[in-house]
Amino acid sequence: MRCAIDNVALFTGSDWVPDACAHIEGSKIVYAGPRNQAPVFDPADRCIDGKGGVLMPGLVNAHTHLSMTLLRGIGSDQVLQDWLEKDVWPAEERLTPAFAKVGAELGLLEQIRFGVTAFADQYFYMDAVADAVMQSGARALLTRGLIAFGDKGERLAENVALFQQYHGAAEGRIRVGIGTHGEYTNTDESIRAHVEAAWELGAMIHVHIAETRAEAEGCKSRRNGRTVVRYLADMGLLDIPTLAAHCVWVDDADIDLLAEKKVAVAHNPVSNLKLASGVMPLPRMLERGIQVSLGTDGAASNNNLNLWEEAKLTGILHKGVSGDPTLITPSQVLAMATVNGARAMGFEDVGMLLPGWRADMILLEAGLPHRVPCVDPAADLVYSAQGADVRMTMVDGHVLYLDGEYLTLDKERIVAEAKQASDVMIYGR
Amino acid sequence: MRCAIDNVALFTGSDWVPDACAHIEGSKIVYAGPRNQAPVFDPADRCIDGKGGVLMPGLVNAHTHLSMTLLRGIGSDQVLQDWLEKDVWPAEERLTPAFAKVGAELGLLEQIRFGVTAFADQYFYMDAVADAVMQSGARALLTRGLIAFGDKGERLAENVALFQQYHGAAEGRIRVGIGTHGEYTNTDESIRAHVEAAWELGAMIHVHIAETRAEAEGCKSRRNGRTVVRYLADMGLLDIPTLAAHCVWVDDADIDLLAEKKVAVAHNPVSNLKLASGVMPLPRMLERGIQVSLGTDGAASNNNLNLWEEAKLTGILHKGVSGDPTLITPSQVLAMATVNGARAMGFEDVGMLLPGWRADMILLEAGLPHRVPCVDPAADLVYSAQGADVRMTMVDGHVLYLDGEYLTLDKERIVAEAKQASDVMIYGR
Repeated sequence: MRCAIDNVALFTGSDWVPDACAHIEGSKIVYAGPRNQAPVFDPADRCIDGKGGVLMPGLVNAHTHLSMTLLRGIGSDQVLQDWLEKDVWPAEERLTPAFAKVGAELGLLEQIRFGVTAFADQYFYMDAVADAVMQSGARALLTRGLIAFGDKGERLAENVALFQQYHGAAEGRIRVGIGTHGEYTNTDESIRAHVEAAWELGAMIHVHIAETRAEAEGCKSRRNGRTVVRYLADMGLLDIPTLAAHCVWVDDADIDLLAEKKVAVAHNPVSNLKLASGVMPLPRMLERGIQVSLGTDGAASNNNLNLWEEAKLTGILHKGVSGDPTLITPSQVLAMATVNGARAMGFEDVGMLLPGWRADMILLEAGLPHRVPCVDPAADLVYSAQGADVRMTMVDGHVLYLDGEYLTLDKERIVAEAKQASDVMIYGR
Repeated sequence: MRCAIDNVALFTGSDWVPDACAHIEGSKIVYAGPRNQAPVFDPADRCIDGKGGVLMPGLVNAHTHLSMTLLRGIGSDQVLQDWLEKDVWPAEERLTPAFAKVGAELGLLEQIRFGVTAFADQYFYMDAVADAVMQSGARALLTRGLIAFGDKGERLAENVALFQQYHGAAEGRIRVGIGTHGEYTNTDESIRAHVEAAWELGAMIHVHIAETRAEAEGCKSRRNGRTVVRYLADMGLLDIPTLAAHCVWVDDADIDLLAEKKVAVAHNPVSNLKLASGVMPLPRMLERGIQVSLGTDGAASNNNLNLWEEAKLTGILHKGVSGDPTLITPSQVLAMATVNGARAMGFEDVGMLLPGWRADMILLEAGLPHRVPCVDPAADLVYSAQGADVRMTMVDGHVLYLDGEYLTLDKERIVAEAKQASDVMIYGR
């Protein structure tokens, strides 16, 4: 299968090429550059006219709980513990594998519509999520959320089985990691078991770190005065390649340690504000060279999976709370929203439009009033563009969405089934 | 002209009606309520099938500089003074009435697309802006930005002439106020003249207040230790109905004074973060009963005019920086984004869908994956919805936009002319 995308303004992830085209063979990019320098290729099976729109790497949602899309809008605007205890947990008790699948499919419809080509997930019934990912054509890092309480090791066993069945599946689109939920939901013993399993499998870890002040303070009293980062480092967890979500309540020593251990951090600014968790110290993390990516968190605390919102908020929030408008450039934000997330999930050839890299890319509509004029193309994408500007979403060379049509998922069926599943979970009917 | 909009989920501005319809005669709503209770009307000239989507009041952008849309993306991420001196002001020197008009038209295309039916503007060449507003069918409060320096009174004379020519024009869609730019750009004498003119004309005032820390601190040294609010109150300006943009750097006494003087405040959270101005103390303002509306500010500091972004950010930002997730409900945000803005601009029968009120309304698309499920309709609109969900925008009973088509503005011409004008202004070519 050969695909050509012509007549675009190309953003490779580092360079801007005003009059460009791209050629894809199978799952890989063979050319992305100026039209007038393109070699002659065999005729393509599919040609897409970009009509002058931007062609760029697909966005990477580096932290979510996709099946929770069924709980979008549940019990907003409460204290976190009330929200979990009164609304989220009772609903989750009614989750079934079938619901987890349709919730994931609903989330995939939304992500694909908004140009999110890959995501890092942590939840349960993850084999159902893996099925949805395979069918959708999306790319994912999947982890089974591991909470020690009420568990005798079955959850880690599920996670290991998930790894054995799905790691590298779907032509490598699916990777599987170990889903340590967090410090406050685990014990020394359970974390030791996760670390051991990760070493044995060669799997990475996806973990929540210091999302709330209560978690950060609780950890110090639970763990002999140690911070969450210090504790997890002491447990050897951070010696494994780790994707850490949130990291809101971290101090300078924690940031040094995250940098030293090369922990990838997923910044979830919309969820962190909505749940009143706080503002992650992004500028200090960037100063220390930490690789930061962006995540939506679950739709229940966002309430959508439109990563463009995280991108814009990241571009403005840290300026606003610090008083320094020069912090965080649009180019930095674009890297966080694309290649940094892919790397954090262990995909080394995803997130830039370079020859030999995976063809995960999106095409934006041209000539939209809200993006005229385009004085600075990076600022255009971060501050002006909308998720709905996405015309086409491609993963591994396959078109998943084009001009309003989904090519791999049945939107009507999924939306109808998701509504029913959501009613059962939330209202028990 | 009679219009019927059937098969909608209605949000009147206070109530939610799941299975509803609306009837419009001329510029006014004659019915908006349950379908099964609707009286029999004469056949409509235009019938729109809502297909189950949400029908709600149009959004009101309570603070912008519409023609600055031509400067979208100019010189991002600099210190405010550098941005103004190196980029914005040199470009504005090349502004002509024709450019001001096409800039306003470009902004109108964007606002109408995103469901903004009314806006409060302050800029120059405002008669050109008024022409654009008349032609577009939008609703506006227009004010001439009044800066004392380099002026011998011509600007106020222009503002007065604008009032005389356009106040109440376009069947009342246009109102004109006095555009006191701010404390730091005016003198005692000039402000006295504005106040006097406003009293004489019966005009309201649209003013910037305490946007930046530098402005707030500078005022104290310029004005014998008084805050901007105190100074403007002392000058008698706040005794006139006033729409005050920003109000970021106000203390408790200022907030009391704003409440006492019934000043309407336009909150511009995206612009305030992007320019690193800070976070307005919204919760304290709401406690004191201040009527707060939402504004995008100019596209040059945003970088779009999509008020849905302000709505979501208002819903999450104050939770995040305070640590209290119960602050600011979605219903409060919806009022800020609609009726509060209309009232702040002096439109008393705009912003709710009630019989006898102006037919300023928008229709959203139904069944979009990113809004399934809809557990809480207010949270759906504030946290999940996108500006691009808007299918139809109506002002005064006239459809301005429907399913991708503009009915009053020529998108292709405006976009092309705006690009040219922007090139001249920014690059001098």
